[in-house]
Amino acid sequence: MRGAVIHAPGDVRFETLDDPTISRPTDAIIRTVATCVCGSDLWPYRGAEPIGDPHPMGHEYVGIVEEVGSEVDNVTPGQFVVGSFATSDNTCANCRNGWQSNCLHREFMSTCQADYVRIPNAHGTLVATDDHPSGDLVPGLLAVSDVMGTGWYAALAAEVKPGATAVVVGDGAVGLCGVIAAKELGAERIIAMSRHEPRQKLALEFGATDIVTERGDEGIARVKDLTNGIGADSVLECVGTAESMRQALHSTRPGGNVGFVGVPHEVAIDGQELFFSHVGLRGGPAPVRRYLPDLIDRVLSGRIEPGKVFDLTLPLDQVAEGYKAMDERRAIKTLLKP
Amino acid sequence: MRGAVIHAPGDVRFETLDDPTISRPTDAIIRTVATCVCGSDLWPYRGAEPIGDPHPMGHEYVGIVEEVGSEVDNVTPGQFVVGSFATSDNTCANCRNGWQSNCLHREFMSTCQADYVRIPNAHGTLVATDDHPSGDLVPGLLAVSDVMGTGWYAALAAEVKPGATAVVVGDGAVGLCGVIAAKELGAERIIAMSRHEPRQKLALEFGATDIVTERGDEGIARVKDLTNGIGADSVLECVGTAESMRQALHSTRPGGNVGFVGVPHEVAIDGQELFFSHVGLRGGPAPVRRYLPDLIDRVLSGRIEPGKVFDLTLPLDQVAEGYKAMDERRAIKTLLKP
Repeated sequence: MRGAVIHAPGDVRFETLDDPTISRPTDAIIRTVATCVCGSDLWPYRGAEPIGDPHPMGHEYVGIVEEVGSEVDNVTPGQFVVGSFATSDNTCANCRNGWQSNCLHREFMSTCQADYVRIPNAHGTLVATDDHPSGDLVPGLLAVSDVMGTGWYAALAAEVKPGATAVVVGDGAVGLCGVIAAKELGAERIIAMSRHEPRQKLALEFGATDIVTERGDEGIARVKDLTNGIGADSVLECVGTAESMRQALHSTRPGGNVGFVGVPHEVAIDGQELFFSHVGLRGGPAPVRRYLPDLIDRVLSGRIEPGKVFDLTLPLDQVAEGYKAMDERRAIKTLLKP
Repeated sequence: MRGAVIHAPGDVRFETLDDPTISRPTDAIIRTVATCVCGSDLWPYRGAEPIGDPHPMGHEYVGIVEEVGSEVDNVTPGQFVVGSFATSDNTCANCRNGWQSNCLHREFMSTCQADYVRIPNAHGTLVATDDHPSGDLVPGLLAVSDVMGTGWYAALAAEVKPGATAVVVGDGAVGLCGVIAAKELGAERIIAMSRHEPRQKLALEFGATDIVTERGDEGIARVKDLTNGIGADSVLECVGTAESMRQALHSTRPGGNVGFVGVPHEVAIDGQELFFSHVGLRGGPAPVRRYLPDLIDRVLSGRIEPGKVFDLTLPLDQVAEGYKAMDERRAIKTLLKP
């Protein structure tokens, strides 16, 4: 089969790879229907994370089950399935608590930008749809496997409640899905922080009521202006830098909540500052598996359209261009079709 | 009148001071019935916080109203009142959200180890009891004004739920009150971390089910042993050092919560570590005013007995000995009677 391999910053190649095989009874092999490039893939692509030896890339996927191991009884060959970037057995103590992305047997997906993918813990990870969805619904279902599930978690971690004011820091695909989530959870005012016009438009389409283009202290002051001077009830931090975390923490009202889903890069939080802010803080890789049935329903019913974050669709063999377009901010998110 | 004044580390004196007077229409003057020495008073006493010019001390109090300003209509002279270490107007946006300790007009109390005290924002801070309580209830009501209210907040911030497992880090008066709070909120298993026998005994009396004497990595391993290997649902951090915060964060299960009420001293939280832990974190000065009516009821009905944290009672003029006994860990907490 063929798939993407990263060799060095800026150097992603489409290469011939070994076909994946069932190596454990809880594995499944899927034929990829759609995969994509994630904002977090840009960290190594931009040299901000070490790459080491050349290796496959990609952790978002929907596909058709090709083969299952002997202990996989939740899906069968031929079914269309959605999974999560973090695999889980869905039975361990952490899974039972709803934290499948902290499963005691978790494996992070990392080979999905390819024709075929081995899914570890398939028995606890994959959810099949009743029928094969029509092509126009595939991007939305693909989004659910990561960015929509992550935006949903960000909004829940930020404790968005009906009537609340929410701020979304970050206008990437996760931030935009965070706007969808805040809207679905009943936020009345949703402030999207963005200075990129196409993203602002999509944020407004998804339910944002206000756009703040300022950053840093000016951005914080602007949010305070919009929130009776005290800050927002809920802030979704969807970037992962020290600056975006500061933006989030200072945009939250006393007693409000920050949900942070951008993987933190060199972020340290001052204990005394957090203390006196009264802000609640929770982050992490989203337990997407917990939300899959609900989010799949919302996509299939047309209630939410997170597939709109894909503003570039390419054949899988042009994966290198998919990275480049996102790196240069010509695309919000690239969908890849084998 | 007379009151405590700190001059330097280890040097607290009982001196003649000016009588307080009403300086704003929202002030009240109370005659102190009981006051006490707080664990946080030990930070400057031990030289861990700058002292500057000699100044009065104390922020915990119950008393009899002597005089009220023209805008104070919630209490009248002669009533027995309980307040909070943080004063609040109880009407601003933060107060309405339940965060009275972040009131936009907040003033922290700091002159309570004295015969008389001026209470700013008395209209939003003081709560009167129906009658003058009997003497045996005074210590419990005094505890409500700070340590019991703070332990209560720690348990709520740690989201203690019925059936939960809670860990309390810190065996000072706040930690011990945290045990009471965890019990009241329905925790089934309460693990108190303490290596001091009198405090262990009180923790068990308050509802602790397990005592862990180990600290650091051994303490964390011991908690994991007691919690199916994954950690506790809720952890109350009641110290404020980098080591105690680490203890708390690593004793919490994925998706669990830490409530931290020890004022952090040189505590930095690593963003990536917090991220991958999935732990929720909230701290701050407790919004005691929010809990006052409920906690006063629980004390007056005899349901909780937080007054037991006072294991030393001295006349106010021996305040210096009160500090010394706590500094040397001869006393958990010193109650002072004018």
